[in-house]
Amino acid sequence: MKSKISIITLGVSDFKKSFDFYTRGLGFTPHNYKIGDVYTLFEMEGSWFSIFPIDMMSEDAGIKRTISPSSSFTLAHNVESENKVDEVFELGIKAGAKLIKTPQKVAWGGYSGYFADPDGYLWEVAYNPFTDLR
Amino acid sequence: MKSKISIITLGVSDFKKSFDFYTRGLGFTPHNYKIGDVYTLFEMEGSWFSIFPIDMMSEDAGIKRTISPSSSFTLAHNVESENKVDEVFELGIKAGAKLIKTPQKVAWGGYSGYFADPDGYLWEVAYNPFTDLR
Repeated sequence: MKSKISIITLGVSDFKKSFDFYTRGLGFTPHNYKIGDVYTLFEMEGSWFSIFPIDMMSEDAGIKRTISPSSSFTLAHNVESENKVDEVFELGIKAGAKLIKTPQKVAWGGYSGYFADPDGYLWEVAYNPFTDLR
Repeated sequence: MKSKISIITLGVSDFKKSFDFYTRGLGFTPHNYKIGDVYTLFEMEGSWFSIFPIDMMSEDAGIKRTISPSSSFTLAHNVESENKVDEVFELGIKAGAKLIKTPQKVAWGGYSGYFADPDGYLWEVAYNPFTDLR
């Protein structure tokens, strides 16, 4: 598995409100967004990934933070083929991930599965034939 | 504000378990990790950021997913100076973000503040004099 988070997706309650916040407010540039879409990507400069005990994260932010069992965001790991999805997915399960959704063809035309890390954070392993995210 | 998530940090309940999952299990390479540390970075290839209605994310994963008011992860935006932290932080607040912690000097030697996006997702705006994450 490459050290790669292809996409960080936040689940939002009011798409327009969040869209305005990130575009007009913070100045992020949406990618291929068309009016009426309820999904948008923002191309970002390189990111790092880290893990940290939740209690220390609470101290750092000065508020109580708890791990929610149902994660409302996804870390997507995109690969170049359906076979590669199966391969990476199996690696995750062997590593102790919890199976959420077996890799399968999905409505948007791709192929993907979901597993959860030890705290329940959701990772999607996906092949998307329509993009070069791989 | 640059289109940049410098670090995605997951709050974890059992650091060793998660560390083993991401290193031995998924094969990610920790960066400057020393035994006993309770924090580690993983250098990742480039990431994208996206937003998506939570209900559709539930459909996609085949499980019910809800937005948790107390987010257990942080999207960090690192900049090159304390002044720049103040500037970006102010931009976020003007964009409608909720103030969580006013930018201030912090125990680890840097300077940072926290705000929450419209759904409560936490962003940290930080200056870290010890790294080149900026």
